[in-house]
Amino acid sequence: MMKENLLFGAAYYLEYMPYDRLDTDIKMMKAAGMNVVRIAESTWSTLEPKEGQFKFSYVDRVLEAVEAAGMKAIIGTPTYAIPSWLEKKDKDIMVTTNQGKALYGRRQNMNITNSTFLFYAERVIRQLVSHTVSHNCVIGFQIDNELKHYGIANEEVQQRFKEYLKETFVTTENLNHAFGLAYWSNSIEDWEDFPDMRGCINGGLASEFERFQRSLAAEYLKWQSGIVHEYLRPDQFITHNFDFQWKKFGADIAQDGYSYGVQPDINHYEAAKAVTIAGTDIYHPTQDQLTGAEIAFCGDSIRSLKNQNYLVLECQAQAFKYWTPYPGQLRLHAYSHLASGADGVMYWNWHSIHNGYETYWKGLLSHDLKSNPTYEESCKLGLEWETIGDKILHLKKENQVALVVDNQSLNAFKWFPIDKDLSYNDVVRWMYDSLYEMNIECDVVDVNALDTSKYKMIVTPALYSATEGTLKKLKHFVGEGGILVSSFKSFVADEHLSVYHEEQPHILHECFQMHYNQVTEPGKMTLRNKAVNYIAELLKPQGAEVLANYEHKYWGNYAGITRSEYEKGVAYYVGCYTSKDILKEVFYKAAKDAGIATLPEQICWPVIIKNGRNQDNHMLHYVFHYSEETTSFACPYDNVIDILSGNQYHQGDTIYLKDWDVLILEEK
Amino acid sequence: MMKENLLFGAAYYLEYMPYDRLDTDIKMMKAAGMNVVRIAESTWSTLEPKEGQFKFSYVDRVLEAVEAAGMKAIIGTPTYAIPSWLEKKDKDIMVTTNQGKALYGRRQNMNITNSTFLFYAERVIRQLVSHTVSHNCVIGFQIDNELKHYGIANEEVQQRFKEYLKETFVTTENLNHAFGLAYWSNSIEDWEDFPDMRGCINGGLASEFERFQRSLAAEYLKWQSGIVHEYLRPDQFITHNFDFQWKKFGADIAQDGYSYGVQPDINHYEAAKAVTIAGTDIYHPTQDQLTGAEIAFCGDSIRSLKNQNYLVLECQAQAFKYWTPYPGQLRLHAYSHLASGADGVMYWNWHSIHNGYETYWKGLLSHDLKSNPTYEESCKLGLEWETIGDKILHLKKENQVALVVDNQSLNAFKWFPIDKDLSYNDVVRWMYDSLYEMNIECDVVDVNALDTSKYKMIVTPALYSATEGTLKKLKHFVGEGGILVSSFKSFVADEHLSVYHEEQPHILHECFQMHYNQVTEPGKMTLRNKAVNYIAELLKPQGAEVLANYEHKYWGNYAGITRSEYEKGVAYYVGCYTSKDILKEVFYKAAKDAGIATLPEQICWPVIIKNGRNQDNHMLHYVFHYSEETTSFACPYDNVIDILSGNQYHQGDTIYLKDWDVLILEEK
Amino acid sequence: MMKENLLFGAAYYLEYMPYDRLDTDIKMMKAAGMNVVRIAESTWSTLEPKEGQFKFSYVDRVLEAVEAAGMKAIIGTPTYAIPSWLEKKDKDIMVTTNQGKALYGRRQNMNITNSTFLFYAERVIRQLVSHTVSHNCVIGFQIDNELKHYGIANEEVQQRFKEYLKETFVTTENLNHAFGLAYWSNSIEDWEDFPDMRGCINGGLASEFERFQRSLAAEYLKWQSGIVHEYLRPDQFITHNFDFQWKKFGADIAQDGYSYGVQPDINHYEAAKAVTIAGTDIYHPTQDQLTGAEIAFCGDSIRSLKNQNYLVLECQAQAFKYWTPYPGQLRLHAYSHLASGADGVMYWNWHSIHNGYETYWKGLLSHDLKSNPTYEESCKLGLEWETIGDKILHLKKENQVALVVDNQSLNAFKWFPIDKDLSYNDVVRWMYDSLYEMNIECDVVDVNALDTSKYKMIVTPALYSATEGTLKKLKHFVGEGGILVSSFKSFVADEHLSVYHEEQPHILHECFQMHYNQVTEPGKMTLRNKAVNYIAELLKPQGAEVLANYEHKYWGNYAGITRSEYEKGVAYYVGCYTSKDILKEVFYKAAKDAGIATLPEQICWPVIIKNGRNQDNHMLHYVFHYSEETTSFACPYDNVIDILSGNQYHQGDTIYLKDWDVLILEEK
Repeated sequence: MMKENLLFGAAYYLEYMPYDRLDTDIKMMKAAGMNVVRIAESTWSTLEPKEGQFKFSYVDRVLEAVEAAGMKAIIGTPTYAIPSWLEKKDKDIMVTTNQGKALYGRRQNMNITNSTFLFYAERVIRQLVSHTVSHNCVIGFQIDNELKHYGIANEEVQQRFKEYLKETFVTTENLNHAFGLAYWSNSIEDWEDFPDMRGCINGGLASEFERFQRSLAAEYLKWQSGIVHEYLRPDQFITHNFDFQWKKFGADIAQDGYSYGVQPDINHYEAAKAVTIAGTDIYHPTQDQLTGAEIAFCGDSIRSLKNQNYLVLECQAQAFKYWTPYPGQLRLHAYSHLASGADGVMYWNWHSIHNGYETYWKGLLSHDLKSNPTYEESCKLGLEWETIGDKILHLKKENQVALVVDNQSLNAFKWFPIDKDLSYNDVVRWMYDSLYEMNIECDVVDVNALDTSKYKMIVTPALYSATEGTLKKLKHFVGEGGILVSSFKSFVADEHLSVYHEEQPHILHECFQMHYNQVTEPGKMTLRNKAVNYIAELLKPQGAEVLANYEHKYWGNYAGITRSEYEKGVAYYVGCYTSKDILKEVFYKAAKDAGIATLPEQICWPVIIKNGRNQDNHMLHYVFHYSEETTSFACPYDNVIDILSGNQYHQGDTIYLKDWDVLILEEK
Repeated sequence: MMKENLLFGAAYYLEYMPYDRLDTDIKMMKAAGMNVVRIAESTWSTLEPKEGQFKFSYVDRVLEAVEAAGMKAIIGTPTYAIPSWLEKKDKDIMVTTNQGKALYGRRQNMNITNSTFLFYAERVIRQLVSHTVSHNCVIGFQIDNELKHYGIANEEVQQRFKEYLKETFVTTENLNHAFGLAYWSNSIEDWEDFPDMRGCINGGLASEFERFQRSLAAEYLKWQSGIVHEYLRPDQFITHNFDFQWKKFGADIAQDGYSYGVQPDINHYEAAKAVTIAGTDIYHPTQDQLTGAEIAFCGDSIRSLKNQNYLVLECQAQAFKYWTPYPGQLRLHAYSHLASGADGVMYWNWHSIHNGYETYWKGLLSHDLKSNPTYEESCKLGLEWETIGDKILHLKKENQVALVVDNQSLNAFKWFPIDKDLSYNDVVRWMYDSLYEMNIECDVVDVNALDTSKYKMIVTPALYSATEGTLKKLKHFVGEGGILVSSFKSFVADEHLSVYHEEQPHILHECFQMHYNQVTEPGKMTLRNKAVNYIAELLKPQGAEVLANYEHKYWGNYAGITRSEYEKGVAYYVGCYTSKDILKEVFYKAAKDAGIATLPEQICWPVIIKNGRNQDNHMLHYVFHYSEETTSFACPYDNVIDILSGNQYHQGDTIYLKDWDVLILEEK
Repeated sequence: MMKENLLFGAAYYLEYMPYDRLDTDIKMMKAAGMNVVRIAESTWSTLEPKEGQFKFSYVDRVLEAVEAAGMKAIIGTPTYAIPSWLEKKDKDIMVTTNQGKALYGRRQNMNITNSTFLFYAERVIRQLVSHTVSHNCVIGFQIDNELKHYGIANEEVQQRFKEYLKETFVTTENLNHAFGLAYWSNSIEDWEDFPDMRGCINGGLASEFERFQRSLAAEYLKWQSGIVHEYLRPDQFITHNFDFQWKKFGADIAQDGYSYGVQPDINHYEAAKAVTIAGTDIYHPTQDQLTGAEIAFCGDSIRSLKNQNYLVLECQAQAFKYWTPYPGQLRLHAYSHLASGADGVMYWNWHSIHNGYETYWKGLLSHDLKSNPTYEESCKLGLEWETIGDKILHLKKENQVALVVDNQSLNAFKWFPIDKDLSYNDVVRWMYDSLYEMNIECDVVDVNALDTSKYKMIVTPALYSATEGTLKKLKHFVGEGGILVSSFKSFVADEHLSVYHEEQPHILHECFQMHYNQVTEPGKMTLRNKAVNYIAELLKPQGAEVLANYEHKYWGNYAGITRSEYEKGVAYYVGCYTSKDILKEVFYKAAKDAGIATLPEQICWPVIIKNGRNQDNHMLHYVFHYSEETTSFACPYDNVIDILSGNQYHQGDTIYLKDWDVLILEEK
């Protein structure tokens, strides 16, 4: 695999360059200490301008130049945008969704199950991979890009979904019962009466369809992986660029937004089985809004897919006007990625494209293709990595806390929202960000991948849909001494979004020693004098300790937060959306119960410390300062040396931090 | 009919239960003093899972259990949601609207004029009714549910509309003239040139089409009624569950909203001819937002349909998180309904459904199907009714005030809005709520049903569209001594939304002794130092007394509110959207002119008093306190006894009210 | 042409009248001093109620009455709304856009390239023109109305667009390169692979298509002009009613909005070649919001099309509730138009229509068709014009400043917005309005029509797309002594929206002696202690004088506004959206550099002075007061007489202004 060095580079599109400047680019990359380019992804119409006529000149030229420069390349299969000639081959090649049939133009709007599409996709993949695989510089392949299911509801997909339901439920009676289809006359007696899913208003069945659509995407990725594997050298990897739910905050057109939370439209854990190393793109607010939280959340998610280092295949150099980095921020971004376990950072992209939809998703070079302050900062960073890369490569992280995420619960809240202003990912981020700001690191684990034996503490934000298997697993975890911290709306419904009809929270009310059967809008309610928002479950302790009661004329007898010692463990339940300060108090208490060492409370965001062991098994403490101010804190470690500055600190020494500062403290 | 007792119960869906608990449910209902269930509505796919195969087991089991328990049942025809097998029978069975053809899935999106639909609907109705009609416990039938026209614009409907226009207007010349079709080249010479109504931008013609669509809905209801009548026992009733314009305030998905005003998509008065007793569902804000106004408005509307007691077929037990009732509120809701003339209250629904679109439209039981505080309050209420039911059944109300409402005027403001932030129903509620808060009770009367001889005072909120017949009727009413209070935008256009081309307000300017021909946005204008919003008609008195002039540099010479003594009566005109306080002053003055006795001004919302005579012809004064505070007021009645507490009060005695309190003062 | 008098009148629709009152209307018009009606536009279904059956009775009656009254008429071709019989002739007669195929109903939604449409349009035009052209009273024809391209993307249009691209680019390689189609696989090898433009997401290509669509509209107008020319007398004119980008601020339905900026959907300059005199409609806020800015901006735009007086074919009498004019405002509106070079003012419309979409777009008469204060004000105005008309007709304006506008740049910002809250027209108006408020008059010139030799100073708001030809022209202008003031986002991309890949601003950085390659959201940044909004380009002077640096922790070293002396001229660059006060300081400085005499700074909005020479070559200074207050200023002219009052003023005399006042100072 790439292995020996941190990867540092950029997506590079010779195809999009306004004039020939390959040599200049490679020279500028080298000057920035870059050692890798990511190429070819999305360029199908250049690779195969007419059906069956392949043209590798752009790829070849780049590979030659890269090889000559001693750099590496990652080849992307070009399939996430189809050429227009292909669209004309099959009337069903475009995706049909609830909004109708897509028109050609955008990327990511084809029917990935269509056999014509698959035929041509396979051919171009085989051509590209066989053509490039033997180059020394090629260290790996990226299959497709930012794959999602695209809302695919073409007729053949609906047919396959019906077959899947038949296999799963065998009888329509089972189907009707599982999803409660009798409601509003949606039950069926004969399978042939199964209706077009595009009109479906049963949240459970619709979510099952989305789960199925996510599986189609995972299956498609596996199919690409299988093809590439036929050619792959043992030292080459297969990766994919997983992305996250995108939070828009402005215009419709692609000028803003950022990686916010769990991706609804593909299951990362399921899909990651197709790759040998996980890859991702992470975009995040910067300038005054740079908190590091998105880098940490997304990194913790991607690392947890395979419990292994990962690649940041795309991240921002400049991008939108909101993200032109302040001096020091580009460097801070990069180290933030590494501290979460990334083994490399690649910008999207090298240059700012002069046309098309993402003209203002600016690259490291601006449109003038000359040096600029951001590029210059990358040069300093590249040199730094050439010096210290060995000491920070392959950071191994062993977190004691897991935060559990779930596509199905996310989906559930599209149908059964807690509140119009509170999404599933808002709850996830509310809990994750609280931990992050307290410097309690965690894995972000798909519920289907959860190995409770690895953790002392498990956090479940709004784990609305949970199988009885999961519930029993969590109960066992607590029984065996684990610490569980669950938010409101956890453990409410089964995998088909049927609300459990027994005492809530289902099964786990035994651990929590609390139950509830009423829920309210908080209104004027407070908890410890702070406003409660969006939701308040009216908790009735049955043995649990009440950590806080609601303050309200009518709801004052109900608990808002409970703590319960159950067998060898402890289970916390936070029944309302309260302030992060109160949530953090719960987490501190829980961490203490779990025997997890925490930093002094004063060491908290904007000072962030992330930990891990390097290849020499030395403990590293990355220290980040996400602030334009200066600050200081007392060194909490016995004896550490800052790899970057060479400064040495003993416990209690004052460590000074500049604005947007980075230290890497290595334990002796 | 049901007759002997107040009906108290819930919608009950055995079909939706996660497991068999019929006996438990009936037992719990009995414990709550419930005496009726409403069943079968919307369960077509359960009743007829395959074409022609009928299955009555759920219905039968419930009827047996109900009968055994000495309770009653109301059977709903299941037609408001069709089974998926039916959708596949006829390509035109789904409704086609301006947004295109509906997909199967939701309820209420079929073409109710389609002959295939009607064929199968008739068969299932006949099967269900003939199967159940002879049960003793069956006291009546509900035909369909919350019927509306669904925006139906299928080809056959358009064809029928054209035939209707031909009959009405005979010549295209008449048609062109009635709607002013020459504008933007929409006039036609030949009937065959009549275009697709879905593109129509002539507000008058489009509103005529909507009127026609409403008639189709009424006709459909009449058709169902006719079928049921063939089977009906003399002691059984036919009802329908009429609903109101729904005001959303949050997410798209069904988690909020409430019954706000006049229903745009069916004419209640026209449609109510199909039933023997009017039924309704009324949902309203509660917790801190409980004012009682929606219960009163909707109740006054439904009672006025047939000038008779009515049934609340659905109302909220818990429903959304916003509506989990405070202690005392569920009881307050119920008595509020009775005080408007309801003869019974049924919750929607008994239990919280575990799947589907309305999972969080919670019932009396939460998803755990156990007792809970809300259910427990219903038990106390049920017991209370078993005790006092006889004294409060069949409340007869004789109001001296009519507030006139009109679908066509509502429709007009969709095309010619007063302001983007002020709908027709906002004006209706502005006037209605002012009367309500003053404890002046009124009937809410469809303009087509108005019998002026019954009233001393008539209020017209934004009665924009009025036939000359209506105008003359109102003029006669004033001439004969009636008191008319009209708001801005009353009497502007005829029944085709052609603005009258004579002096405004058309015909009635003679009564008002005032006219206007300019209207303005109020801007910085005030009236009695309070802001004017949305609209100000620049009134020019021609004999009328000016109650208030506008305060404004340029509009200060115009009147905003006028009062005119005309023959034996008085006509008030409120030319602007002013504060409710000012409007109430007008109403007090008008009531005085009308010789209507009003309570002292201090007895006003949140203290609400509603009146009527019970079966023994005793005057009852319901006293409600819509507040979390306590308060008191001086008893305005000579000698009354509170049926609920037994307390006796004489005039001037202090009556104390707790939070969310209810008293029923019976006159001796 | 009309010539001898200011035209004063209204659109007149006998077709829409509820009853026959032609004589009354003509009499009332005469009483108001009106001398012209504009008729027939949009009345196709009345003119040709059935295919081939023409009916001129309405037109004839009006022309007879007008002729008898000594008035004039302008005949509009009726083509902007088609009769329903025509819609049924050809399935492709309605426009197909990105939103699908339009339904019949609205005006302006037909396919103006469809041959069936053109066949019938030609016939009705020929019939109408030949029928009316010989009337003495007919002074001219208006072809179509408010023409736009309607988003036309019918198949035949797409085919023609492809042909156009083939002609323009010859090879697909050129095409791919020009628009950067390789991005996201949009490049093509064969022309037959060219995709449906409706799915296009390449901003450059999509904008090219819109340019093509605008050309189709211009071509259609030229075609109508050609037909009319065949009949035209030498003394008759051809005009068109050009409108502007409409800014909505309220309900969807047509109750608000106003003429705001450059029209996106037709190129005025290109289209104006079809007419002999430019015409326009201008609607604008009034009451407290009357600033005169829209009248000035739109007037300056329309006058600049042909550098000639123009006609205000439509303007508001009363229109919406927001626009019921205060006393004096109707008169102020009219003189404001004249002072920009209008030779006449016609209201839309004479009467308020009693039906249809624009019922509340009220005319001079309200729906009661009687006199009212607004009509009465028009009478005073008409009498005034009969007296002084000769002195103010044919005002000749010679502005020294050009403000350059461009459809393509406007289009660019739909794809590449500066900010979701800042449109192209916002930038145009920010610069225009600043000049306006300073009493610096300018021409508003299409970039394709720019003759730099006519101006001392050129202002370019966000001239994003500029050919190298334009850039060189502007460079030459500065070199020769011109003063250039350019805003951020000027000169960024070429005519295909390809961003220039050299130093920015392309070519002109030599004049500006400044360049930049980074841009940022301003965040907390200030400039001269005032907030910067939306955008800040980080300017690096290379010889330019820095007029202001950004105030910001990290961007403080960059300039925000620069001034550069280049050869004989001066070039200003404003790199950020700053306050209008700061922008005005730049303009004052630039005007001084340009040797343009400006009024003392105290004479500024709400006191507006517009200048020009009358037919006798006397200098006129219109003085307007857009305020409800009174004010005064020192006369800046040696010796002037107010044509309206007869008052004479010498330099330094105090001139008093009432609210909404008008003076016309004639120099001796």
